[in-house]
Amino acid sequence: MSVKKKTRGQLIVLSGPSGVGKSTVISELLSERQDIYFSVSFTTRQPRVGEADGVNYHFVDRATFERMIANEELLEYAEYVHNYYGTSLKVIREKLDAGIDVLLDIEVQGAAKVRAKCPDAVFIFIVPPSFEELSRRLHRRATDQEEVIQGRLRKAKEEYQEIPNYDYLVVNDKVSDAAAEIIAILTAEDCRTRNRMNFVEGV
Amino acid sequence: MSVKKKTRGQLIVLSGPSGVGKSTVISELLSERQDIYFSVSFTTRQPRVGEADGVNYHFVDRATFERMIANEELLEYAEYVHNYYGTSLKVIREKLDAGIDVLLDIEVQGAAKVRAKCPDAVFIFIVPPSFEELSRRLHRRATDQEEVIQGRLRKAKEEYQEIPNYDYLVVNDKVSDAAAEIIAILTAEDCRTRNRMNFVEGV
Repeated sequence: MSVKKKTRGQLIVLSGPSGVGKSTVISELLSERQDIYFSVSFTTRQPRVGEADGVNYHFVDRATFERMIANEELLEYAEYVHNYYGTSLKVIREKLDAGIDVLLDIEVQGAAKVRAKCPDAVFIFIVPPSFEELSRRLHRRATDQEEVIQGRLRKAKEEYQEIPNYDYLVVNDKVSDAAAEIIAILTAEDCRTRNRMNFVEGV
Repeated sequence: MSVKKKTRGQLIVLSGPSGVGKSTVISELLSERQDIYFSVSFTTRQPRVGEADGVNYHFVDRATFERMIANEELLEYAEYVHNYYGTSLKVIREKLDAGIDVLLDIEVQGAAKVRAKCPDAVFIFIVPPSFEELSRRLHRRATDQEEVIQGRLRKAKEEYQEIPNYDYLVVNDKVSDAAAEIIAILTAEDCRTRNRMNFVEGV
């Protein structure tokens, strides 16, 4: 009976309303846990100022995205505020098989599809400290017009209905605290008996 | 919608074979998380050198323990290597109601009884890096005769059969790493959606 290393990576799904500060939390998380592979999604939406192709998203046109759907190249995809967002299956499968943890940043529709296909994935939902604070953050970002912001707030209220389907709820009050909680969640998931039974020989 | 504090403490059950170094891990854990209440068990076994009444155990005689059983004062109790070990119910209930996390150090029979009564408790099993290492640690402790050590090793093999009933498996190779993993597990459990739904008003 001796300790062995884990053989398969963990799939981690992160969702949360637009404006909650998910990208900042993810940056902090990835700087602490550089062994995690962050799956860059494909989208048909326009890049925001400061966003780079292949870093924040793979930015593609609608025809390209619809070809990927037809070819079944996507683990999940969804249409959100008139744009497609989707996740490539091939790369994720390779990383998990190589024992590397994979992080997905996807909205609730996409997460529901991943949940149906990968029930062993870890599902984490990030909320702001309050709804008023979410509104403040969306206004502070100042990239969207007021009607778009109101649309995002309505959408957030709908997304909140999905929270009970997530394993964990993290409040993004302070970015470093939220990232630390996610790191603790991933450590705990590594310690799950079902993921470690191969650690104990002869049982 | 705003963040609220949790209202109820978490019950944490820690088990592991004799000699795995559980007491040392627990000391490290409690020095980091001083908000946790460590439930001191009652036992009829003799104190070892360095053990103090009310700190390591409440040491009582057999008649006293059997009176506690008759009065239903115990959450669980078990007989183990010809001695009783048990947990008082009253104090634990008070602490949990006050929002304080409670840590129990109990063996597998007792843990099974707690699991039946408190399915929301967190169950953590601690193993040594190998069975050979467990044998070395038991011999190094040098408080027991060889036949007692052999009895403890046989008992450990039986206890290992219970591991699949535990939520988490922690390997005590380095004490500080094992304690850090347990702290991460407790943080993650605090983040569980079911424990935080009251954080999100209006859902």
